[in-house]
Amino acid sequence: MTFESMWADLAPVGRVASGGYVRHPWTSATGELEAWFTEAAVARGLSVERDAFGNLLATTAGADGDRVLVGSHLDSVIEGGAYDGPLGVVSAFAALDVLRDRGVALNRPIAVAAFQAEEGSRFGPACLGSRLATGSLSWESARELADRDGVRLGDLVEGGDSGILRDVGCFVELHVEQGRGLVDLEAPVGVASGIWPHGRWRFEFAGSADHAGTTRMEDRHDPMLSYAVTALAANKQARLADQRATFGRVEAVPNGTNAVPSRVTGWLDARASTEPALEHLVGVISSQARDRAGRDGTTLAVTPESVTPAVTFDEGLAARIGRGRPVLPTQAGHDAGILQTAGIPTAMLFVRNPTGVSHSPDEQASTGDCLAGVEALADALQELAS
Amino acid sequence: MTFESMWADLAPVGRVASGGYVRHPWTSATGELEAWFTEAAVARGLSVERDAFGNLLATTAGADGDRVLVGSHLDSVIEGGAYDGPLGVVSAFAALDVLRDRGVALNRPIAVAAFQAEEGSRFGPACLGSRLATGSLSWESARELADRDGVRLGDLVEGGDSGILRDVGCFVELHVEQGRGLVDLEAPVGVASGIWPHGRWRFEFAGSADHAGTTRMEDRHDPMLSYAVTALAANKQARLADQRATFGRVEAVPNGTNAVPSRVTGWLDARASTEPALEHLVGVISSQARDRAGRDGTTLAVTPESVTPAVTFDEGLAARIGRGRPVLPTQAGHDAGILQTAGIPTAMLFVRNPTGVSHSPDEQASTGDCLAGVEALADALQELAS
Repeated sequence: MTFESMWADLAPVGRVASGGYVRHPWTSATGELEAWFTEAAVARGLSVERDAFGNLLATTAGADGDRVLVGSHLDSVIEGGAYDGPLGVVSAFAALDVLRDRGVALNRPIAVAAFQAEEGSRFGPACLGSRLATGSLSWESARELADRDGVRLGDLVEGGDSGILRDVGCFVELHVEQGRGLVDLEAPVGVASGIWPHGRWRFEFAGSADHAGTTRMEDRHDPMLSYAVTALAANKQARLADQRATFGRVEAVPNGTNAVPSRVTGWLDARASTEPALEHLVGVISSQARDRAGRDGTTLAVTPESVTPAVTFDEGLAARIGRGRPVLPTQAGHDAGILQTAGIPTAMLFVRNPTGVSHSPDEQASTGDCLAGVEALADALQELAS
Repeated sequence: MTFESMWADLAPVGRVASGGYVRHPWTSATGELEAWFTEAAVARGLSVERDAFGNLLATTAGADGDRVLVGSHLDSVIEGGAYDGPLGVVSAFAALDVLRDRGVALNRPIAVAAFQAEEGSRFGPACLGSRLATGSLSWESARELADRDGVRLGDLVEGGDSGILRDVGCFVELHVEQGRGLVDLEAPVGVASGIWPHGRWRFEFAGSADHAGTTRMEDRHDPMLSYAVTALAANKQARLADQRATFGRVEAVPNGTNAVPSRVTGWLDARASTEPALEHLVGVISSQARDRAGRDGTTLAVTPESVTPAVTFDEGLAARIGRGRPVLPTQAGHDAGILQTAGIPTAMLFVRNPTGVSHSPDEQASTGDCLAGVEALADALQELAS
């Protein structure tokens, strides 16, 4: 099973008409992805563990001691691309093949990981699998999370402390780059310095339901207007500060064409280079939202749904596996950030993405760059496990 | 069955936790409403007709000749109030009781109507039942309409030319006022002059799906921004021109917190005092939307979903039943407008609404004003049918 043949086997799983992927956790795609992982692991003589939440780990036989963990996730956002997640898992298996071909003798076991539910596209918080496996999120709180159809996570799956990360000494996650940093640097592979602090805040604007035809404009308390001004303010403030702020999700109630809405809820995704900068950004957006709500006669409640502090990856580990490659930050959360924060020395490798686009069918990486990523990952594993 | 007892029987049907009503067409509420209508009709010795689409007509026995039609509709918007529609049907039955108590001998039959699917809350276009019954909408085009879950109207119900409006000489619809005109005039009941021209336009903004964290603000083509500016522009233009424009319904794709959306669709409800004013209003909003889409690098398609010309009610009929009561226009579409446009002389009576609010649980009318409405309607029927 070469990199290319593994990639081809995964290609149809969860693919939709747009060319994108819907690999939501706990759907039919999940079963196919797990079967693919197990087949790839067994073919290499690895022993597969699956915890109750669906995190998968496949460990090499032979050597003793702390495991070198390598991998990523297989789930996708709604209509996402092919690379975000799966590239790291496929490259991990392919890197083991490179070590075998090189005749490398391992003195530490290597474990390939596929973390469950990294994207948060179904239940909200991202990196659920790695948060539960590291204990940074308790199953008691996670089980109460509900998806948009009201399905409770606790009714879908069993969780609890899986112990699947016992004896893990370090973690390396390879990931497609989600910007054009490596394109500008003309490098196929780079090393991560850290992850910007980021989070999600729910903005709920409440007004008065009214008839859209008969209610005079001046008599309305229309939360759609407060929301619209806030979405524009978020964009402007992030642009001015060279940070990121997005309202990509909105829900109106009753969401009828001929009704002034009683409630409009928008979700702010905000990220910044430092924690004070993030706090300032969200503060300015909230303040402008509140001002406008006051003028519209609507009310505003802002609720942080998840806030992730800045992550700095292990500098020694980055130096050992980086080998002079370019070092760059990322604005995206990753399981690697969860493990680093939980005290496991962690590094990330990025593979060049010519479009710079991710979470979209336009996400790309050339086969040549993917194979360069596999070589870099094999070098890292050889450095760490032999 | 007094007005009050009929009202009490209807009160629990389709009521939800907010105190509002969800009386969507072709749901369990529909069956209860039809059963209530049939019981009220049979108790008064009326013969009930039901066409394949669900329009209901109950006609008095005895007199021959063209029927005097009186009534309204029983369905509601999502989370609507109790009065919009049902007040006209309950008042029609109660007015027949007044004529009986007065000992009035009819020389023309009177028919009580409950038109199906007036609100358009499920399939889009309003007044589906009266449009189909008058032939102003063909079943061939209506059957292809789909609700938000993709259910086709043609798979839910049979339609076709029902003939249910044969031998109808004129129509009187009593309705709760949807503004505060009668409050300002200190009158419990008024007569309609006409209906403002109005319509629904779908604004589809298409951009590029992107990662909300990693995509630089200046690299985005975010249709949420184009939509937000358009919603604000609609409000401002309507306010400046003393007309009405509302974006109360919005849908984003993929609607994920961490994704710049690829598509945002908003529905414009616009109404104006004249047809040129409406055309100008929608033109200015579309033009501002297109300008902003150009700056955002998004595209815009504007599709009219339904546009209803101005309606002027029959002046002779209004004079006969108005009896010096205040005359006022309405910005809301009604089955009365469909029948007038189809050539059936039509009039409307409005009952005072102290909040001026409609399409909301706050919609109100005092029992005293409702009974004044019943008396006015009884006077009108006596004038027209005896």
